[in-house]
Amino acid sequence: MALPDISRLCLHTITTKPWPLEVALDQYAQAGIRAISIWQSAIEDMGPVKAGDLVSQYPLDVISYVRGGFFPHPDPLERQKAVEKNLRTLEEAAALQAPLLVLVCGAHPDQSLTTSREQIRDGIEAIIPFAQQHKVKLGIEPLHPMYADSRSAIVNIKQALDMVLAIDSPIVGVVLDVYHIWWDDALKAEIDRCGQHDRLFAFHVCDWKSPTEDMLLDRGLMGEGCIDIPSIRKWTDNAGFNGYIEVEIFSNIYWQMDQTEFLHRIIDAYLHHC
Amino acid sequence: MALPDISRLCLHTITTKPWPLEVALDQYAQAGIRAISIWQSAIEDMGPVKAGDLVSQYPLDVISYVRGGFFPHPDPLERQKAVEKNLRTLEEAAALQAPLLVLVCGAHPDQSLTTSREQIRDGIEAIIPFAQQHKVKLGIEPLHPMYADSRSAIVNIKQALDMVLAIDSPIVGVVLDVYHIWWDDALKAEIDRCGQHDRLFAFHVCDWKSPTEDMLLDRGLMGEGCIDIPSIRKWTDNAGFNGYIEVEIFSNIYWQMDQTEFLHRIIDAYLHHC
Repeated sequence: MALPDISRLCLHTITTKPWPLEVALDQYAQAGIRAISIWQSAIEDMGPVKAGDLVSQYPLDVISYVRGGFFPHPDPLERQKAVEKNLRTLEEAAALQAPLLVLVCGAHPDQSLTTSREQIRDGIEAIIPFAQQHKVKLGIEPLHPMYADSRSAIVNIKQALDMVLAIDSPIVGVVLDVYHIWWDDALKAEIDRCGQHDRLFAFHVCDWKSPTEDMLLDRGLMGEGCIDIPSIRKWTDNAGFNGYIEVEIFSNIYWQMDQTEFLHRIIDAYLHHC
Repeated sequence: MALPDISRLCLHTITTKPWPLEVALDQYAQAGIRAISIWQSAIEDMGPVKAGDLVSQYPLDVISYVRGGFFPHPDPLERQKAVEKNLRTLEEAAALQAPLLVLVCGAHPDQSLTTSREQIRDGIEAIIPFAQQHKVKLGIEPLHPMYADSRSAIVNIKQALDMVLAIDSPIVGVVLDVYHIWWDDALKAEIDRCGQHDRLFAFHVCDWKSPTEDMLLDRGLMGEGCIDIPSIRKWTDNAGFNGYIEVEIFSNIYWQMDQTEFLHRIIDAYLHHC
């Protein structure tokens, strides 16, 4: 069954990257959207406190702050710097009253994925007390294996959930993005398992275009690629997830078009292809 | 332990794509290389019979013919065409006296990966008798999940081996390429399992550059990326594989350099990073 309205639609600021935060807030609210996930790049100029004040004037829930992570590095000093940077990022998330920090966990080409995963776990455990103090949850987002060299040693939902369960803190869960996980034949079973442990914290959508021209910046609108988003969304429903469905698209093509027109297309795609 | 010499080195013609087949044969033989895997593009001009005659004049074993496959399609007529095309490809392989046809199995963005995998199995089963008659084995190559929209619904070694065992023919096995599978944490266990069933038919090497600039044509020389090739190679050794180690690199960068110099670099990389 298609989604009946846009009451569960959330937009990531990066999706309409050409808009400064104040324009995005205006436009999203005018379109009847009720939720926003805020990227670090969107608040760089004004800073988190001023951005938090601004956001609080709009009828938009802040769903997540994007992004922390990037813990692994062969040099322990660099790992310590990464932890400290994540603490600053948590302060920013708290200033925005974002209840969740999305973690792109990181990887390093000079060491094994196993070593990187150990360092990710150490990094997350190091920031949990500070996150709890600031009332910000932490969401581990598995990334597509094509980013395993540098962006994430966690390449599927099973690895993400296994780490969440090993860490065993109620504030650490899994963030799913269909773009990263659609190819995995364990997907339904692992979404179920996330639900059983009450650890599905967020759900992101976009589409995988065929062909895809760029490894990072050629994501598609829902319905324009090969991902069966409605099935995956139903699996998240069945797993008990009733949070927002977040549209997160990086696209050189869409960033070049009129963003108001793009926003209408996003809403249309959301209603017909999620 | 590093490889002691180049007695197990095989080159794919696509690796030195600017060279016509006759130049590749001359140059490989002069460099002391003993084996070659031949791409369809390398024999297009002269045809398989003439190419087979030419190859037989050189002290080079033909290891595989690349490539068949691309079975899935929503239209049954297109699937029938794909089967017929694979029969012609098998005839070409036989003319070259290639003992193995590498299968890039295919996928289609308009249908599920499950459906595509069923069609892959049907396609392979349809060509087995003809392959047996022509004394050509069939190798299922799992491809990286970033190609799951169009090139291969088989995205990891477990799926490839499971299909091989379900088909249950002694002429169908698995072809491994480190580029496609390095990120998989089931890798060692699945290579072992291939060995237990005596189904590891071929082993390809190159490297994953960090960053990678192009999804298809930016493969690295062994040692220049993040793949731990020596460990994977040792796992294939332990699984009883004693065939050739095949260098298969698609690279706009390397194709632009002097190919004799590139050949020397390949040999050096093979001796130091495999």
